[in-house]
Parts: sequence; C-alpha cells; structure tokens
Amino acid sequence: MSVTEVELPPIFCPLEPGIHSRVRDIEARAEKWVRSSGMGGDEELAWIVASHSADFFARFAPTADADRLLVAALWVYWGFGFDDARCDNGPLSADPGAFAALAGRVQRAVEAPSAASASEPYIPALKDIVGRFRAFGGPAQLRRFAVAHRAWLSGVTWQIGNASRGHMPDLDEFLAMRLLSSGGEPTFAMLELATGVEVPGREMHRPVVRALTEMAIAIAALDNDRHSLRKELSRGHTDQNVYTVLMRHQDLSVQEAVDAATRLRDRVMLRFLDVQERVLPQAGEELRHYLSGLRYGVRGNAEWGLRVPRYLSLGHVPGGLDDTPLEWAQRPATDDRSPLRLPAVAWWWDEDLLSR
Amino acid sequence: MSVTEVELPPIFCPLEPGIHSRVRDIEARAEKWVRSSGMGGDEELAWIVASHSADFFARFAPTADADRLLVAALWVYWGFGFDDARCDNGPLSADPGAFAALAGRVQRAVEAPSAASASEPYIPALKDIVGRFRAFGGPAQLRRFAVAHRAWLSGVTWQIGNASRGHMPDLDEFLAMRLLSSGGEPTFAMLELATGVEVPGREMHRPVVRALTEMAIAIAALDNDRHSLRKELSRGHTDQNVYTVLMRHQDLSVQEAVDAATRLRDRVMLRFLDVQERVLPQAGEELRHYLSGLRYGVRGNAEWGLRVPRYLSLGHVPGGLDDTPLEWAQRPATDDRSPLRLPAVAWWWDEDLLSR
Repeated sequence: MSVTEVELPPIFCPLEPGIHSRVRDIEARAEKWVRSSGMGGDEELAWIVASHSADFFARFAPTADADRLLVAALWVYWGFGFDDARCDNGPLSADPGAFAALAGRVQRAVEAPSAASASEPYIPALKDIVGRFRAFGGPAQLRRFAVAHRAWLSGVTWQIGNASRGHMPDLDEFLAMRLLSSGGEPTFAMLELATGVEVPGREMHRPVVRALTEMAIAIAALDNDRHSLRKELSRGHTDQNVYTVLMRHQDLSVQEAVDAATRLRDRVMLRFLDVQERVLPQAGEELRHYLSGLRYGVRGNAEWGLRVPRYLSLGHVPGGLDDTPLEWAQRPATDDRSPLRLPAVAWWWDEDLLSR
Repeated sequence: MSVTEVELPPIFCPLEPGIHSRVRDIEARAEKWVRSSGMGGDEELAWIVASHSADFFARFAPTADADRLLVAALWVYWGFGFDDARCDNGPLSADPGAFAALAGRVQRAVEAPSAASASEPYIPALKDIVGRFRAFGGPAQLRRFAVAHRAWLSGVTWQIGNASRGHMPDLDEFLAMRLLSSGGEPTFAMLELATGVEVPGREMHRPVVRALTEMAIAIAALDNDRHSLRKELSRGHTDQNVYTVLMRHQDLSVQEAVDAATRLRDRVMLRFLDVQERVLPQAGEELRHYLSGLRYGVRGNAEWGLRVPRYLSLGHVPGGLDDTPLEWAQRPATDDRSPLRLPAVAWWWDEDLLSR
C-alpha cells in the first residue's frame, strides 16, 4: 500500500489548547542557543531548529515563566537532536552495548555536575541545560527530572536492543517500552520545572497520578507514531511503532493497523478523561496545575505534530510550521470503556489501586 | 600472581555495627520463601539461600519492624539470584540487547501491578515482593524504590554492554557504572520501606544527601570488589572490577591495584565521615534516621562480606556463615582529603553545591 492510500482519521482530543504568549520570542532565543550549542554540523542543527521545540513546549506550559520555559524548550531541542543523531540513526542505533555506555555517561551528566563530557558533543549542551535547571529548580523537581531522564534512556536502550536483534515486540512489550522511549517522562517532568509549581510527593506518587501521567505519555506517543507514519512509509522504515507491531503480530494491513491503533489510543483517552474528572475535585492546587499541564501537553503535542516539518517534510530541507486549520474528530473511534487486556497497562483500570 | 600471594589489608570502617535481634527468625522465614519461590532449581536456590541476605539486611536496619525487614531481605535474596542467573552468567550476560528487554520487563513488573511474567521465573517472585511493599509502603517510598530499581538495571545493562564488546572502562566510567550496577540504589532505598521512616523530599533530594547516599554505595561496592577478589582470581575471571580497571589503565600489578583501590576507597570514606558530621546537626529526625541507616549499611555490608560463603566458598557447595572475629584497620590507608580527580564523583567535594 502506498503512502497516499492510507487514510489517517482525524484525532479525537477534547482538551483545551493553549500556547504561551511569548512563544516567538522564546523560540528565537532557543534557536540562537541551538546554533551555538556545538551539538552538530549545520544540517544537523537546521533539523534540530526545525523541531520547533519551543512551539511544542509553549503549548505544554502556556502560563509558565518565559525564562524557565526557555530552558525546558532547550531540553526538547536537545532531546530531538540526540534522538536523531544517536538513537534513531548512526552507529549506536544498532549497538545496544555501546549505546548503554553512552546513555550511562549522558545520565551521569544530568546527575553529577562535575561529570566529564569525554568527546561527546551532546553532553556539554545537556550540562548547560541542567545547570540552568539547577539554578531555579527545587531539589525534588530536579530529582524527578533526573529519574525521568533515566527512564527515557532505558527505553531507548530497550528499543535499540530489539532493533539490533531483529526482534519486533508484541503490543504489550511495545507499550511498556514506548512509554519510556517516547521521551514523555522527562517532557512531562519538566512541567514542574517550567511552571515552578511543585506537587507534594504524597499526591504526585499516588498510583492514580502515576496512571494519569502514563496515560498522557501513551496518548502522545501513539499520536507521534501517527504523525510519523507517512514519513516512515515513504522511507520504507520498518522500525518498531504501533503499526508495525500490529501488522506483525495481528496480521493486519496498514489501514487495519491504523484503525486498530486509533481505537486503542482512544480507549486510553477515554480512560484518561474519566480518571481525571474523578481526581480533580479532591486534588490540591499544585496537583490541579500539574493535571492541567498533562492536558495541555497531550493537546499541544497533537497540534504540534500535525504541523511540524519533523513529521511533514519528506525531503532533506526542513520547511516552516504549517498553519492550515486543524480538523479534529468529533467523537472517539470506540465507546469501549473496558480495561485494555494488555498486562503492562491494565492497572490503569484497577479501581482499587487508583482509589488509594 | 596467585590467589594466596595477594595481601588484602583489613578494612577501615569506624562506624557502629548493629544487627536486628530477630535476625535468625527472619532468616528462617526468608529461606522458606526462597525455596518455594520458583526462581530456579535446587542448586540455584541453595546459592541464593547462601547469600544470607537476611543477615545482610538485618545489619542495615537493626531497629526495623521484623515483618517489613523480612520483605526487604526477600528482595536482597531475589537480587542476588537474579544477578547470578541473568546478569553475571548465562546467555544474557553477553547480550546487552536481550538483557535490556528483560530489564525493561522486570522493571515494568515493579511499576505496574498488572504486568505479565512472560515465562521469566524471576518476575513472579519479584511481583510477590513488590506487592508486599505496596501493602505497607507509602507512595513516595515505593516510588523511590522503583526508580532506584531502574537505576540498578541500567547499570547492569551498561556493564553487560561493556563486557559484550570487550570494553574495559577507565576508572571514571567504572565508578559511574558501579554506583548503579552494584545494586546499592535499591538496597539503600529499602531503608525507608523497612523502617517506615520517610525522609521529606526537600531533605532527601538535597545534593548533600544524594552525595552521602552515593558515597555509601561507592564504599560498599568497592568493599564488595575486595570481598570477591580471591574468588575472581581463583576462577580466572577478568570482568570489570576496581582491580581489573586499575591494572589495565594504570598498568598496575594485582598487589599495586589492591593498594590503590584501598586508598581510593578510604578517601571516599573520609569524605563520607566529614560530610555526614556536618549534615547531622541540621538534619530532621527522619533524615538522621536515614543517615544512621547508611552508616549501618556500610558497616553491615563489610561485616557480611567478610563472612558470607558467596565470596568465601571457592567450590560448588556453599558453606555456612563464617564466625571468626573480624579484624579492622585502625586508620585509613591515606590521609588525603583532597577531592578525587574523577569527574563522575568530584562533585562530592563541591562545597558550594553541598551547602544548598
């Protein structure tokens, strides 16, 4: 099936959008930083800039302080650059042993201000970003970001390991891996750093708040698989995403996989909406702020993904942000509110656990 | 150089020892659990029992509730078993891609109560343990354990990756890796679960408390390298430990490496003692309790390691706990209190950061 024959249904996302009023100013400052970051050559930097990460994170935290938002955006630029250069392409993308060592050194640079860069140009740039976080973030916020950063790298190592041995995970393994490798953990952990609003540990670590965070990550990750499908198909990529997993293990065509993935994603969205509605009335002010960040983030990720040249440009020169109006689904692709029969995530429907 | 020619100096450890009064009862209950855990065959289980993990953790938390201490001890038995069967030996010990996937599924079992076991006998046993933690642990304690567990697995993946490509890390990389792969993170994270005393986040995540935790882990890990040196030498193992690292990169003999490693370890111990003394007066009650756990743990790990058949038995049948009196060094092997010139850990001497 060719690229143009796949019909991608519009996204169901009944969440309020938002974007920071100073997004263009922040984006300009971020681009200047990227171009002087030393992370790569001109073409690499052009693609990093074209991720429009400031636009991305300005949608996650529309009310944040602009200076803090800038630093969070810098990490997103950094993350896209690192992902493209060291995870998805290049010699390490098929060498889990070498990647695990790089991931270990990168993570040490997040946790130990004195850590060495050892000839990896992405490490000094990361240390600059984390040093800025350290200047305004509280100890718990910094720690939450650091552990989220490790979670992401562990997921990337898992994905590279699968690719290196030609292992296509089943849907259950894929979701557990994708929750990590998508980068959603550090991205959402930056909500607190950007807004300065810290959720008390007794609320943040409740199973129900973890479940909502994971669901937000899952929705955004599945939306990103959707965003990149045309590009993946046009390039003949057969890497691990929700469609290749469904096609392989459930013997589906591309179109059938698109429809099945949409239903899967919408079931998670329905659960996210239901659980959130129940949590909000009992949530403290900081938690309410965090949950609004999850909603803004899911919505913002979808809007950004529908327009960003990272996913839309099939050629080598990244274009600008598309600005055609977006079309949204009026209803979910399914009304099924029963628990997903996927052990890795079935606990999102565990009423007993979520009421603790 | 043969095994018997290496002279291992006594350990410098001016920390008060302790052991839980009900250690034998807890050990008996734990052994019963191990034997019915399904983790492996009879010989494998005999070695797991011979880790005397209840004795080990009873020294970390001498005042803990016995029922909670039991569960923490179960995890230590589990960890030694998993380490021997899946990390240090067997087909995965040279296959970082396959190990990363197993680590991902194991970690998911810690975080998602619904996670599947998928034919890995160590996973149901782990789920049993974590389910017990969940029954009495607070959300923050459980979360701290979970992220520490991931840190450990990421370090093991790093180590396996190095081994698989014949890469002997330099001392700086080795320390960053060993801080994780030693298992010290989850072990010390269980202090709070076992004692029930939770350190507030604003204290727990202060750089100085992180530094003390990392130093305790480093000392215990280096002591464990010492404990296992004779066994490693007798088996001709050339795997990554502080001695093989020093021998390779600083061109030292075994005896010179032993002496250099002892000085390195004692410099960390001196720093641990100095920093702790400064923190204690301003620490809240819970933090003081946690810091006493770090001290008990470092001391207990050394005592246990000097006696346990895991390190002493050169043959195939594990013996019992040795009970000869232990000899300790009266003074450190060095008086050098200057910062280690190893970027991964140099920040432990960063006065500015540690005063925040």
